[in-house]
Amino acid sequence: MRIAVDVMGGDHGCHVVIDGVRKAFESGLKISEAFLVGDQTMISEALTSLRFDDPRVRTVHASEVLTMEDKPVEGLRRKRDCSILKAVNLIKDGRADALISPGNTGGLVAAATIRLRKLEGIDRVGIATVIPAPENEFVLLDSGANVESRPLHLLHYAVMGSVYSREVLGYKKPRVGILSNGTEENKGTELTLEAHKLCKLVDINFVGNVEGHDLFANRVDVVICDGFVGNIVLKTVESFAKGLVSWLQEELLQNPVRMFGAYLARNALRTIKRRMDPDAYGGAPVLGLNGNVMKAHGSARERAIMNAIRVTTDAVQNKINQVIQTEIECANERLAEAKLDIPFTTAA
Amino acid sequence: MRIAVDVMGGDHGCHVVIDGVRKAFESGLKISEAFLVGDQTMISEALTSLRFDDPRVRTVHASEVLTMEDKPVEGLRRKRDCSILKAVNLIKDGRADALISPGNTGGLVAAATIRLRKLEGIDRVGIATVIPAPENEFVLLDSGANVESRPLHLLHYAVMGSVYSREVLGYKKPRVGILSNGTEENKGTELTLEAHKLCKLVDINFVGNVEGHDLFANRVDVVICDGFVGNIVLKTVESFAKGLVSWLQEELLQNPVRMFGAYLARNALRTIKRRMDPDAYGGAPVLGLNGNVMKAHGSARERAIMNAIRVTTDAVQNKINQVIQTEIECANERLAEAKLDIPFTTAA
Repeated sequence: MRIAVDVMGGDHGCHVVIDGVRKAFESGLKISEAFLVGDQTMISEALTSLRFDDPRVRTVHASEVLTMEDKPVEGLRRKRDCSILKAVNLIKDGRADALISPGNTGGLVAAATIRLRKLEGIDRVGIATVIPAPENEFVLLDSGANVESRPLHLLHYAVMGSVYSREVLGYKKPRVGILSNGTEENKGTELTLEAHKLCKLVDINFVGNVEGHDLFANRVDVVICDGFVGNIVLKTVESFAKGLVSWLQEELLQNPVRMFGAYLARNALRTIKRRMDPDAYGGAPVLGLNGNVMKAHGSARERAIMNAIRVTTDAVQNKINQVIQTEIECANERLAEAKLDIPFTTAA
Repeated sequence: MRIAVDVMGGDHGCHVVIDGVRKAFESGLKISEAFLVGDQTMISEALTSLRFDDPRVRTVHASEVLTMEDKPVEGLRRKRDCSILKAVNLIKDGRADALISPGNTGGLVAAATIRLRKLEGIDRVGIATVIPAPENEFVLLDSGANVESRPLHLLHYAVMGSVYSREVLGYKKPRVGILSNGTEENKGTELTLEAHKLCKLVDINFVGNVEGHDLFANRVDVVICDGFVGNIVLKTVESFAKGLVSWLQEELLQNPVRMFGAYLARNALRTIKRRMDPDAYGGAPVLGLNGNVMKAHGSARERAIMNAIRVTTDAVQNKINQVIQTEIECANERLAEAKLDIPFTTAA
């Protein structure tokens, strides 16, 4: 497998991202070529200082970077030579099979959507984030690609999330729920109520509405919502977990007795910390694209980048986009048969 | 102060709610009269079994209960003699100063809005839930009174939440933020972007957009959103905290060494559990009403009910509704001066 890595957009600089690629090589992932896209000088400095010298590495120079402050579409128009666009082009030109970027989310989604196009029959792409819960892991989709959605978009998220959970995470019959303010069928906004009707028509294991209380109680494997709600939920959970861990550490360091107690119980704390670790997945795929694109966390460090690459190779090997394409076609046919009054959309 | 308590709607039955009232009496809260509203026979049985015999207690019979399964408005129409309506009537008739109910949220909001009316100049009421964070406590508003909002509603939530944080929680200049998918001013939905403009015009300590990452990082004291998003955030946090605590307990009980460690570190764990305890507030006020109404958690136990009563007495003693009324008037004047094209609303 050939991967393209946008090494420039992360919070910690290209050195950390490149070290993540090195770790991915070391971990034995089947990578035949890795394109490092970014400033040539900085990349070669990083390669030298890391003593990372592997014939599979190629450098692709990009003179500009789309920063977190840039507005996506406007930024892409202004910075024609930015690393995100150049990395996307490697996929478009058939030189790479998958792309990993820790850069500007909106920029990545926009560049990929414009250059690679969406899969046929899909109107909006969605970011699928895997969130660990005590007894399962659920996919939250859309966690931030599009702020506002229509019912058909949520339906497509449901189908795509279901495929991802099954093919990549290994859930046989993933339970799909629409995130709402209550589990009753009549609870929700106009958007979720309409999406609810659509989800009942297609071939997924739809469990109806789920509410916040269900997320960490092993009642749902794929959680569907618009990107505004999904982004808020994702960041709230991250913030809460982080706040709690640092608070716990502070409390445990208050006196020697507590410290000794924490030492004895360290494996319990470690197990939880390991399972809750956002770096375990390292990134979230942008689903619905005609190409494999993985958004790594902006603050991703070496291990997170390595894991993002690993998860991407899993997705590519499982031909995730082909499966999505087939199942979206089926779903769209079901909706057409039901003769609902929905404006149908194929890739423009 | 005279309180009305709807003892019927909670998950644990009227016995638990009445015991909460007893605890409130014992804790020395200045209550001159407590109306227990519900099934007369069940109430007297509970009073007898609790040996709760206090001259300040009055029983008000209600032959029906609005259950969690009832649709609010339809249920209220069908069950004219339900405890929520009878309790609301005690406020309306001037016989009680505040009402506490663990019952059907939608029913409580609807009954109170219809019978008590809203404060002048306010179009929508909002539920203000206090959420503990490691370094502060923030008010989340609206956490579920209304599923969909308009920008003016969010502005009014901002003003009311600010007053509540200041007058009841004691934050001098509470930082008010709009919950969005990013902190940048251009991030958000049509609703939040418009509300953002309005919030800049009025006299609150507005910090702009906040995202999920800010909630538990001591960056905001009043978090504004529509009731759909607020309800999801609230329940997600509750679910996550609960899942984590039970998971931690399970891990700590795995072997004797961990158990001993947990015993030594128990005060650290207790401190966190105590601070995170949802029972510390026991309920959330419905703000914007012409009357003091507190929604207690459906699963509230004795201590939660006692605390809900305590928080309500604080709000009443601080004349929260008068302050809200004054500041909403000021805010509406500011908006009128700015000559924005917003349809103005007074209580219908």
